Amino acid sequence: MRFVNFMKDGRATLGVRDGDDVRVLGHESLEAVLARGVDLHEWARAQASEDKLPMAGLHLLPPLQRPSKILCVGLNFADHTKESNYEQPAYPTLFLRVNTSLVAHDQPMIRPSVSDSEGLDYEGEIAVVIGRGGRHIAKDDALGHVAGYALFNDGSVREYQFKTPQWTVGKNFDATGAFGPDLITPEELPAGIKGLLLQTRVNGEIVQSASTDDMVFDVASLISIISEAITLEPGDVIVAGTPSGIGWARTPKLLMKAGDVCEVSVEGMGTLRNVIADEPSR
Amino acid sequence: MRFVNFMKDGRATLGVRDGDDVRVLGHESLEAVLARGVDLHEWARAQASEDKLPMAGLHLLPPLQRPSKILCVGLNFADHTKESNYEQPAYPTLFLRVNTSLVAHDQPMIRPSVSDSEGLDYEGEIAVVIGRGGRHIAKDDALGHVAGYALFNDGSVREYQFKTPQWTVGKNFDATGAFGPDLITPEELPAGIKGLLLQTRVNGEIVQSASTDDMVFDVASLISIISEAITLEPGDVIVAGTPSGIGWARTPKLLMKAGDVCEVSVEGMGTLRNVIADEPSR
Repeated sequence: MRFVNFMKDGRATLGVRDGDDVRVLGHESLEAVLARGVDLHEWARAQASEDKLPMAGLHLLPPLQRPSKILCVGLNFADHTKESNYEQPAYPTLFLRVNTSLVAHDQPMIRPSVSDSEGLDYEGEIAVVIGRGGRHIAKDDALGHVAGYALFNDGSVREYQFKTPQWTVGKNFDATGAFGPDLITPEELPAGIKGLLLQTRVNGEIVQSASTDDMVFDVASLISIISEAITLEPGDVIVAGTPSGIGWARTPKLLMKAGDVCEVSVEGMGTLRNVIADEPSR
Repeated sequence: MRFVNFMKDGRATLGVRDGDDVRVLGHESLEAVLARGVDLHEWARAQASEDKLPMAGLHLLPPLQRPSKILCVGLNFADHTKESNYEQPAYPTLFLRVNTSLVAHDQPMIRPSVSDSEGLDYEGEIAVVIGRGGRHIAKDDALGHVAGYALFNDGSVREYQFKTPQWTVGKNFDATGAFGPDLITPEELPAGIKGLLLQTRVNGEIVQSASTDDMVFDVASLISIISEAITLEPGDVIVAGTPSGIGWARTPKLLMKAGDVCEVSVEGMGTLRNVIADEPSR
């Protein structure tokens, strides 16, 4: 199943895709449904109304607008670690995003109006949404804790990422983390999203291209290792890392400016598309 | 006013201190009250019941259990930056905490059962809770956005903090970030918590002692600079940084083990006290 969150009559509305249409499920958020611990498939079947809308033209929202955590994995593809001039750590490199940094499919990713940034960088990734929480989750059980997957563009303001030893600010400008278009439940994809081609395009040109098999820590490992330290809760999001090809590591740098179009595609998952826009002047 | 969040009849309950007692306000959380944008003082006066309980003996909760963001400031005292072997950055060094890492006053801070950690380190700090949100908040207006202050102990698992270039995991083990005992509204304290003595004690011995005047970025600067990048929302928490004296930088190291008692005190604010306990075996 593919869940979408969208604006309808001024309210966030959840729906499930039905071909080119979306069947309305109501106004409960995915965060709330997951927190109740219900089976998403059963709930959606019971909840689905006859009310259908064409997917095209919906004003989408991130599938979850206020996840309880957004845990991002840096340096999770060896060639990206190398282009970033880091040694490959033997443990997942985690940083966090806040909810105010999220932006939906087809909504503009915002290049902030800060004088010392040349532009916004892209990072095509896959987001893993936790369905069943836990601590000390065994790797063999980990995929059973996944509610679904979505595409993510971990838009980065590099100059701010490297102002201090911690990347936080460069990863958390408002409306820089694109998330969507839909939450895809695991049975629609290979187990642990193995063997999928991930590609990022800027203005139609391929800038990142890699197999998810090249992740240093796969989805099951990430869930297991993170949960050794941190209780995972339903609705938590793990953003699984980007391959090489980022704009900051190129000569000359390729940093996105207003009007550029960035697309993240994964086979079987679809495409997350965003236009870059400048932050409105004050 | 001093707000406390505590368990009563199995439910989180908000109260306001009245001498040695706490006057019950009801079951709405501080996060929810702040999100509604009401004036805390007016609301508390209107809401306060005749129901009073002695403060001593209450099972406290963190003043906010699920803040929308927990933005922590590293390297915000020059002598701590030096003992940590970092160059002092010219911009605030931010990392984030997740809600599952919080623990209340008088509840145990948990030393995790991981084989490669010698013990839990302390970091006495002050937490700033945002009342009115905003983006691009001018420094001169910043203190008007503060709902109140609380004490914080940024308990750190150093071996995990330094496994990768990002400190996230070492700062986010479950129940390592002590927060409380109460949320103190600004009129009870000097503007921007200037000129206050902050001290941390382990088993009664002073291990950190500094003036809040020694913060590299003061509270108003932090709010203003952070909000250049990130929209602050009511209920967001900024944890303002620790002075020198951490256990990891000592020779020999002083890392806390089960039974140790850690106290963070700031003049006029009170004391946040936690006993260290081992994570229960599985």
